[in-house]
Amino acid sequence: MAKVGVCLSGCGYLDGAEIFESVATLYHLERAGAEILAMAPNIDQVEVINHMTGEVMSGASRNVLVEASRIVRGQIVDLAELAAEDMDALIFPGGSGVVKNLSSYAVDGTDCQVHDEVHRLVREIIAADKPLGVICIAPAMLAKILEGSGVNTKLTIGNDAQTAQDIEEMGTTHMVCGVTQHLSDSANKIVSAPAYMLAGKIGEAWDGIGGLVDEILAMTDA
Amino acid sequence: MAKVGVCLSGCGYLDGAEIFESVATLYHLERAGAEILAMAPNIDQVEVINHMTGEVMSGASRNVLVEASRIVRGQIVDLAELAAEDMDALIFPGGSGVVKNLSSYAVDGTDCQVHDEVHRLVREIIAADKPLGVICIAPAMLAKILEGSGVNTKLTIGNDAQTAQDIEEMGTTHMVCGVTQHLSDSANKIVSAPAYMLAGKIGEAWDGIGGLVDEILAMTDA
Repeated sequence: MAKVGVCLSGCGYLDGAEIFESVATLYHLERAGAEILAMAPNIDQVEVINHMTGEVMSGASRNVLVEASRIVRGQIVDLAELAAEDMDALIFPGGSGVVKNLSSYAVDGTDCQVHDEVHRLVREIIAADKPLGVICIAPAMLAKILEGSGVNTKLTIGNDAQTAQDIEEMGTTHMVCGVTQHLSDSANKIVSAPAYMLAGKIGEAWDGIGGLVDEILAMTDA
Repeated sequence: MAKVGVCLSGCGYLDGAEIFESVATLYHLERAGAEILAMAPNIDQVEVINHMTGEVMSGASRNVLVEASRIVRGQIVDLAELAAEDMDALIFPGGSGVVKNLSSYAVDGTDCQVHDEVHRLVREIIAADKPLGVICIAPAMLAKILEGSGVNTKLTIGNDAQTAQDIEEMGTTHMVCGVTQHLSDSANKIVSAPAYMLAGKIGEAWDGIGGLVDEILAMTDA
């Protein structure tokens, strides 16, 4: 039975993890018989957004790990405590938390920073030749992590022109991909799926993520 | 195409809506072609719980409607603005929010109060002979709403002895039900499913809720 890390970035698509994508990832892993190792960094969110209005809730402060724990009913650990040897694969659901909390891509674009522990763990997974899944906007963060690594992969965020251009600028090849599909780089064991970069319905994100999870599990040795 | 109300009670099983149950409800409705009308009351949560520790976050304050909007990407309305005529059926996913925010069952048991607007809308749905779905702990709230109404229904929360006894005490029949199953009262168009009252896995809650949604949709005239 494969043990698969799922890194969440909060709880809610405007300031944390996209909830449908997170649940879809967990659901498909469980159905396939995988063991789930949910994680998040123990850091404050960059901001808290009112999801009805889209406005920043001034004065509000929330912790990424604590908020992410809502999605997984408390079954989650601090990412800083984990190493590649603790898991057979690692998946990042999307949501703005990936480009606000785990990295600064939402603000800084191709000049973004990636949280130190996230950067470390992803580089370890790649070095260990273990499968890595990136959903929605997470490929933009991965492109930054891989910048200068010598790993030449292909990624998709669907078809958003600016993000695709940024991904190319950071040294990774971008490929257009349909909303219910996923893109697989077998050589590097990296799989991406657009999900809510394109999805208008839950089911669209669901099917793309289902395909990604199947592919990731097929790539593990477990 | 049926238009189905989904009433959320926050975002997170310890102080709001159970996220897996909420997503399962929305997912199954969408897959079946139903239109979703998500709603929540515009009230403060009774408390905010840290889902990693289970402890109350002292000083924290959150709004049920605003937090619930995280689950549905902002597509939600204030329950007070809705009437039975706005929907073909109504479903309550579970989570402690149902018995802390929508009602006071968690603290007051059979002497609990139900939020005025929730009470009003459910009584309207029953009076209009439209289907009503209650998941997880939500049947305990429904039993209170139906107390003294003359509606003699049967409900399940799985097999929890104390809650079952409370439901009976409030004038409703309780039936034991398996984790992946649901209980249907065709005469009153009321369907219940235990979900996380019993579930140890996402898939168990998923299947019970899938059956409930199918049954609710079969009962609508739309």
